[in-house]
Amino acid sequence: MLAVFGHQNPDTDAMTAALVYARLLQRQGVDAQAYRLGEPNFETAFVLREAGLEAPPLLEALPAGSPVALVDHNESAQSLAGLHELTVTRVVDHHKLGDLTTTQPAYLRFEPVGCTGTLLLKLFREAGLDVEPLDARLMLSAILSDTLHFRSPTTTPEDRDAVGFLAPVAGIEDVEAYALAMFAAKSDLGDTPAETLLRMDYKVFPFGDPAAPQQWGLGVIETTNPGYVFGRQAELLRAMDAVKAEDTLNGVLLSVVDILNETNRTLVLSATEEKVLREAFGVEAHDHVADLGARISRKKQVVPALEAYFSAQG
Amino acid sequence: MLAVFGHQNPDTDAMTAALVYARLLQRQGVDAQAYRLGEPNFETAFVLREAGLEAPPLLEALPAGSPVALVDHNESAQSLAGLHELTVTRVVDHHKLGDLTTTQPAYLRFEPVGCTGTLLLKLFREAGLDVEPLDARLMLSAILSDTLHFRSPTTTPEDRDAVGFLAPVAGIEDVEAYALAMFAAKSDLGDTPAETLLRMDYKVFPFGDPAAPQQWGLGVIETTNPGYVFGRQAELLRAMDAVKAEDTLNGVLLSVVDILNETNRTLVLSATEEKVLREAFGVEAHDHVADLGARISRKKQVVPALEAYFSAQG
Repeated sequence: MLAVFGHQNPDTDAMTAALVYARLLQRQGVDAQAYRLGEPNFETAFVLREAGLEAPPLLEALPAGSPVALVDHNESAQSLAGLHELTVTRVVDHHKLGDLTTTQPAYLRFEPVGCTGTLLLKLFREAGLDVEPLDARLMLSAILSDTLHFRSPTTTPEDRDAVGFLAPVAGIEDVEAYALAMFAAKSDLGDTPAETLLRMDYKVFPFGDPAAPQQWGLGVIETTNPGYVFGRQAELLRAMDAVKAEDTLNGVLLSVVDILNETNRTLVLSATEEKVLREAFGVEAHDHVADLGARISRKKQVVPALEAYFSAQG
Repeated sequence: MLAVFGHQNPDTDAMTAALVYARLLQRQGVDAQAYRLGEPNFETAFVLREAGLEAPPLLEALPAGSPVALVDHNESAQSLAGLHELTVTRVVDHHKLGDLTTTQPAYLRFEPVGCTGTLLLKLFREAGLDVEPLDARLMLSAILSDTLHFRSPTTTPEDRDAVGFLAPVAGIEDVEAYALAMFAAKSDLGDTPAETLLRMDYKVFPFGDPAAPQQWGLGVIETTNPGYVFGRQAELLRAMDAVKAEDTLNGVLLSVVDILNETNRTLVLSATEEKVLREAFGVEAHDHVADLGARISRKKQVVPALEAYFSAQG
């Protein structure tokens, strides 16, 4: 049995890509099963509820040598613990290639598109398979989520074309309204503990010298209601401090992305992070908040700048 | 300009894949140029001559940051020197994934098929482009070469289907006769110096602990005339000894593959290599020759066994 899963702290793309890719592989005769590496966030829970689906089972470990398919990620730090002891036979991803290796030739499909869902649609087409309404709904939701309904600079023409194709198949007439409902669900954070908020869309990146990298934890909260998040600033800073110690990080940042206004104001824990933001982005933090302007994409606008900065420290 | 190239010590697949992929990308509006990282072997020279083509220019270095597309390889040890300072934007390959990383999301296309040419044909089809006779001839030649005309255990149904499709497009009526002519050209080694023979189809593999790997140089001579090669055994062993010192290797092997009889008799330099072959394959060397039986694929039958052996040494 081939276990298919997205990254830790799954977002809508990670969760739906596992479901859709497993279903696609099953139709191709592969004994595939979707899993998740964490709890669905509020947006993903909304998407699954609207689709009438349960979240796939939580995966905590697999025996060494088990075959696995990774979607929406490839770096071991974002994957199942002990990934290097598993047999990666397939990867479908749209991120830069990190520390992944395979012990045998494998199926790897990476393209610089805005969403794994866009790539999965290509796989359906290349296989000559019709897209069922459920799969269409899941891929559509992932693309709207990852591209913030085309607001993110990661958006490509292929993502737009995919949504144009998928919406009628999914039976979603008003894509704008559906996207806003997704974003509203995502923003309805209620009394979620601060550390949960921080870790909801959170990835650890190694920067600089690969032999002795700096480890930075980068969280993002995409919301239509940034006022709510900044109302909990003190709590969030305490959670960042705790996570920095727990994960033995060199730095931690939490970007609060205002989806509708397309801005990024980032919470900055200490003088260490302040210095890096000043030198990498030319911005000053005030009262633990740095205005990163329209840099709303961690992948395309934040990580590359930090990577370049730390590489230059050599 | 995007530089497209295959591995060092290029074989027919590495050379033709660079030519074909550059031509495909050009038709898609990419300013691509094919290069080679070494001299064509006798088989490849035959294929190019029959196609009425010159070999692409030799590439020795590129400025840091230059965009590159890799075909038929992905490991830095087999690529252009300084690969980690270049920007890999595309890879089309059918080998296991090694130490490749990318700084940005890229186009990566890996499938466990017998030949890069088989994958390139898929790319033509997915792009909706007709295959021109020249491209068909080059892809066909690569598949016959890499699979030893379907004799190798790396052969997949897709490789066979590709040849079936490509032969009429290329205008090659008698595929069997064309393959035999390729193998005869490859076997006509003349007075090639022994070290050149050793390095013709030669790759260095890191085995065991990734932090401190053993480096093994594995050469292959595929020939319809093994008697010629064993007639030069003493010279070849001296060349292996020299290469082992030059490349500071832990071990060096030279497999002589009899294409038509599908056997592998491997030249073994010293007691170090003898011990590893005994423990990894259960075979004894006699007079510096170990009979590896039907293990004619370095990629599928030799490297995985060595990898498993050295990993188990812990």
